[in-house]
Amino acid sequence: MHFSLVDIIGFLGAFGTTISFLPQAIKTIQTKDTSGISLYMYILFTMGTAFWLIYGILIGSLPVTAANAVTFLFASVILSYKIRYK
Amino acid sequence: MHFSLVDIIGFLGAFGTTISFLPQAIKTIQTKDTSGISLYMYILFTMGTAFWLIYGILIGSLPVTAANAVTFLFASVILSYKIRYK
Repeated sequence: MHFSLVDIIGFLGAFGTTISFLPQAIKTIQTKDTSGISLYMYILFTMGTAFWLIYGILIGSLPVTAANAVTFLFASVILSYKIRYK
Repeated sequence: MHFSLVDIIGFLGAFGTTISFLPQAIKTIQTKDTSGISLYMYILFTMGTAFWLIYGILIGSLPVTAANAVTFLFASVILSYKIRYK
C-alpha cells in the first residue's frame, strides 16, 4: 500500500482531531471541573459524531467510522461529566 | 442537485461537529473561564483542523475546506484564551 503526501496530511488531520479529545476526557474525569466547558458544544458535537458514525457505516468508510467511533466515545464521557458535575 | 438520505446524514455530522465550537468560543470569550479546558486538546485539535484544511485544499474538496476553515477559527480563539487566561 502506497500513501501520497496528500494522504499523510489527511491522516494527520484525522489523528489530531480524534486523539485531541482524549486529554480533555482524562482532565475532566480527574478534576470534575466542567465550569468552563460548554454544554451546548458537547450536545452538538456528540450528536455530530453520531451522525458521522452512521454516515461512515452507510458509505462503508472504515476511516470515517473508526475515527468517529473513538471521538463519539470521548465526547460522550465529557458530556456525561458536564451534565453530572455542572 | 439531488441529495440522498446518506448525504443528508453526512451533512448533519459536518454541521454538528463544526458549529459545536461556536457556543464554546462564545462561552470562553464571555467568562474567560478556561480552568476545565484541556490545553493539550486544543493544541492537538487546532493542529488537526489545520491539516484537514490543507488536505481539503489539496484534494479540492469544498466541504472539507469550508468546515475546517470555520472550525480552525473557533478552535484558535479558544486555544488563545486558554494560553492567555490559564
